[in-house]
Amino acid sequence: MRYAVHRAVTELLAEDPAESLTIPVIAARAGVHATTVYRRWGSVPELLSDIATSRFSGDVVVPDTGSLRGDLERWVGQVATDLADPDVLKLMRAAVGTGPLGCDACVADRHAQLAAILDRERSRGGAPPEVERTADLLLGPLYYRAVFIDRPAGPDWARTLVAGLLG
Amino acid sequence: MRYAVHRAVTELLAEDPAESLTIPVIAARAGVHATTVYRRWGSVPELLSDIATSRFSGDVVVPDTGSLRGDLERWVGQVATDLADPDVLKLMRAAVGTGPLGCDACVADRHAQLAAILDRERSRGGAPPEVERTADLLLGPLYYRAVFIDRPAGPDWARTLVAGLLG
Repeated sequence: MRYAVHRAVTELLAEDPAESLTIPVIAARAGVHATTVYRRWGSVPELLSDIATSRFSGDVVVPDTGSLRGDLERWVGQVATDLADPDVLKLMRAAVGTGPLGCDACVADRHAQLAAILDRERSRGGAPPEVERTADLLLGPLYYRAVFIDRPAGPDWARTLVAGLLG
Repeated sequence: MRYAVHRAVTELLAEDPAESLTIPVIAARAGVHATTVYRRWGSVPELLSDIATSRFSGDVVVPDTGSLRGDLERWVGQVATDLADPDVLKLMRAAVGTGPLGCDACVADRHAQLAAILDRERSRGGAPPEVERTADLLLGPLYYRAVFIDRPAGPDWARTLVAGLLG
């Protein structure tokens, strides 16, 4: 049932023009009772947050290249590739549109990945930048480009971004 | 009529939990006929884009402090202050949720302001960074913090951000 509902939302978001997402519309597309959807998720924001969380969890493998610079460059490239998927972008914008819960679901896992990369550098004996500053300077431009201006970011861009952070 | 409809949307967005935005709901709140709203804006995305454009146009005055660093620091501070307004944040998230049109309406004017600041530096004989890189490193973190993690950004943060760009 969970899979059918998630897929129904993804399909509805992909349609152009996108139908407005309501529980009855989603339930009809998934072939389940609306009451079942209400009982499990409560509302569209909770449902979108659940979908965003499951979509953005474990989608990017934290790289281990042997250096902080290499790890961050590869990670930025992976996230940029993921954000270039039109379905991902539609899901992310819809989740943002539902409010704080959806926004958090879009970034929580990315933030955890960055923290893991910085922790590994510390365990190598390095002194990486703080996670907040790293998020500002890497996740900031990545999400700004994807969500607001939909401008593709190539591999050179990842290197420039990481160089701006690490010097 | 335009003002009444804009105000109706702002009111509906401010309510908790936010009612789902449809043309009939908006028209009823504004006290106008739904057909009038359909005729003028066509759909909710167009309407939200119009509201975002009018809200984000001319809301920040391009500063002229005599130096690029000073201009950028003051501008980042102004934008951060604006983005800390809960009504602005709700409008921006709702506009993003409607798709590319709404996203563009949120950033077009900011991008033009940055270009104006960089142009002024060129007219002073300076060699400012490119507008794309400037947008990545200033608008990126500003919008990421506001939209995704809702973390307030103080004046020190603006200085650090600009120092990261200008060295």
